[in-house]
Amino acid sequence: MFYGYDVLVKRILIGDLRGHIDHEVLIQGWVDVRRDQGKMVFFNFRDRSGTVQGVVLPKSPAIETVKEIRNEYVVSVTGRVNKRPEKNINPEMPNGDIELEITAIEVFSAAEIPFERDAEVNIDTYLDHQPYTLRSKEAQSVFRVQATIIEAYREALRKRGFVEFQTPALVGSDAEGGAAAFKVDYYYEQKAYLATSPQFYKQIMVGVFERAFSTSKVFRGEKHATTRHLSEYSTLDFEMGFIQDHTDVMATLEEVMRHIAKRVPEGEARMPEKIPVLTLREVQKTLGVSLDEPDLEPEHERLICEWALKEHGSDFLFVTHYPMSKRPFYTYEDENNLGYSKSFDLLFRGLEISTGGQRVHRYDELVKRLEAHGMDPALFSFYLETFKVGMPPHGGSAVGLERLTARMLNLPNIKEATLFPRDMNRIDTLLNNNNE
Amino acid sequence: MFYGYDVLVKRILIGDLRGHIDHEVLIQGWVDVRRDQGKMVFFNFRDRSGTVQGVVLPKSPAIETVKEIRNEYVVSVTGRVNKRPEKNINPEMPNGDIELEITAIEVFSAAEIPFERDAEVNIDTYLDHQPYTLRSKEAQSVFRVQATIIEAYREALRKRGFVEFQTPALVGSDAEGGAAAFKVDYYYEQKAYLATSPQFYKQIMVGVFERAFSTSKVFRGEKHATTRHLSEYSTLDFEMGFIQDHTDVMATLEEVMRHIAKRVPEGEARMPEKIPVLTLREVQKTLGVSLDEPDLEPEHERLICEWALKEHGSDFLFVTHYPMSKRPFYTYEDENNLGYSKSFDLLFRGLEISTGGQRVHRYDELVKRLEAHGMDPALFSFYLETFKVGMPPHGGSAVGLERLTARMLNLPNIKEATLFPRDMNRIDTLLNNNNE
Repeated sequence: MFYGYDVLVKRILIGDLRGHIDHEVLIQGWVDVRRDQGKMVFFNFRDRSGTVQGVVLPKSPAIETVKEIRNEYVVSVTGRVNKRPEKNINPEMPNGDIELEITAIEVFSAAEIPFERDAEVNIDTYLDHQPYTLRSKEAQSVFRVQATIIEAYREALRKRGFVEFQTPALVGSDAEGGAAAFKVDYYYEQKAYLATSPQFYKQIMVGVFERAFSTSKVFRGEKHATTRHLSEYSTLDFEMGFIQDHTDVMATLEEVMRHIAKRVPEGEARMPEKIPVLTLREVQKTLGVSLDEPDLEPEHERLICEWALKEHGSDFLFVTHYPMSKRPFYTYEDENNLGYSKSFDLLFRGLEISTGGQRVHRYDELVKRLEAHGMDPALFSFYLETFKVGMPPHGGSAVGLERLTARMLNLPNIKEATLFPRDMNRIDTLLNNNNE
Repeated sequence: MFYGYDVLVKRILIGDLRGHIDHEVLIQGWVDVRRDQGKMVFFNFRDRSGTVQGVVLPKSPAIETVKEIRNEYVVSVTGRVNKRPEKNINPEMPNGDIELEITAIEVFSAAEIPFERDAEVNIDTYLDHQPYTLRSKEAQSVFRVQATIIEAYREALRKRGFVEFQTPALVGSDAEGGAAAFKVDYYYEQKAYLATSPQFYKQIMVGVFERAFSTSKVFRGEKHATTRHLSEYSTLDFEMGFIQDHTDVMATLEEVMRHIAKRVPEGEARMPEKIPVLTLREVQKTLGVSLDEPDLEPEHERLICEWALKEHGSDFLFVTHYPMSKRPFYTYEDENNLGYSKSFDLLFRGLEISTGGQRVHRYDELVKRLEAHGMDPALFSFYLETFKVGMPPHGGSAVGLERLTARMLNLPNIKEATLFPRDMNRIDTLLNNNNE
């Protein structure tokens, strides 16, 4: 009855080959490059642990089989691990001092590549061929960094008593207002929408766990075609209760970002002992621009980040006290600075990567604020119950994972930091091709 | 310019109070219960770290303030931590040997609860009032367990060289066929759908990382109203390359489940040294039911799990070799058992919690299989490129997070293991109320 799991021939990972010098081994992976040199054939093989050079000598029993094998073929290779003579050592390659002398090679699957690995292609061609282009060393390392960022985010918050929760993507109404929500054909002509943020649910979870976080997808139907917008993106959210004000949220976010920067040393993010903080009006004064604008232009974000780097040695900058008019209904007003909110944006290398602040926690006030925004409290009954049954002063923030990844690695277009980006014109391939 | 983050009065978490006996402290949290006894008022306070009893003596300066305070009020409490006299110690409570003698109490927010905490309510009332009902000790512990399960899943896979990736929720076509996909109103009348599984994307990522996993939301528009179906659920997916066959996937899934069971001891999941394995036909023989059926009825799943527990002391059972006719187009056929697939379901305490298997990895074969299923390969060009550029033998599995949570804690209805469940009739509240 039991079928057993033993692997009959043991595969060695390329990264471990150096422990098998002078022995026969089996490796499995992709042909990264094939080069023919006289009667000899050289390969670089690639698996998840690294790359290694293999050689088929003219006398090898594999010499016939290798004739058909080209780049990206998936192969199972038997051979002997040899130390290379001193003069052939390639110090550029991690395994540059060893070589596999191939005795047998089996093809798992053939490959036909759309263009050479190092061909210069535009972003649309790159995206059209992601199943192939993501295999490059550069793309792989972007998404390994992204995996580290999201894990570091969770680590930092768990350590501080935050509990992860699963937030819904389907919501009953375009509740927050502002962001354009995609409509979904739900059962029996009923209406549903895609969530533009987990905001309401993370506030509900403050009532349950005090400190809650989620890593989820959100959806924005805005008609932007820029290098920093996506129709679907990953948001790293947290929300915490029993704060004094928004600065407690900023302190937590700062600790989280410090942990992420530590876990991603290749990002070389410069962060002084404390991230500098300016109010919106202070930013505008510093830049010598109009004090009447309620928000910063992308160009202003870029310039004030240059200032923060020059003056404070910081790639990060907090901007606080946006006018209430520019913030959602649940934003907390600063009692000492009426008209301005206890909110912040976090800028990183010229781009807003996070937004957050303190929220209104008293039921009566929240109902008033909904009404003042021309919204019907009856449509918010589920959310409002959270406040009816008692809520502490609380606040939180949201970080865009793809934006953070792109800035961390200085990628000019957010789509290079997105697996399978969706925008106005694209879901996998260009949409015109995709719609029957 | 810098606003500083210092908390003016230091809050002590209730779980740490025992380190402050005979000292004055500040705690902040919810009123879990209020009890009046003569001229004294007793409270149980709750924060994220635990509960503690507080008492307001008739001479306390707080005696006036507490008059208004009822269950679920959010409060900031100053008092002295006293050791209780031996005879008043409550061994049932974690903090049963101490008590807070209250000197001041401040109300952050009032509360009006819809029903008492211990009231018996039906599932619809429970769900309608989740912002309140999730605060119970029982509900809190369900979702703490769920947070542990998802983290243990990621831990086990990272340890084995799997890399996390973000899979899209918006897809261009109802690609897999079979499961009913929700349609989304995308830009300019273009069509998009909600993903019913991350299957295609995790296969693409095998080409990139060999071993990849994701924790994501998927959406099923099937018209089921049962205790085990949801319209939106969390799926724990992994996919791995260079396998011998489906048993490598089963071995990995078994290791992952063993790690989860270890991290969730309260689940008391019984797992012998090896999870027993039966083919579908062996299950049917064992149960004495028809050998012509291509699948198991829920009742059969329940009965064969009883058998596995009795015969093998296992809450888990693998069932393999479902007929090809019941599996998707990418399923790998068993060469030695034509008509049957190298696939499996994992049953846990009577319910299928995971499905998986080996996948077709050769391009030509996959195109043939699409055509045989009456599907147009041209619509799958993005997915198919993965195979055009070389793919190893591979396979993977998907675990339903809410199902696993529900079975782990023996909850009869999957909705009790779901934060904000969506079904045919409900998004937060019942849909009739929710649609303008």
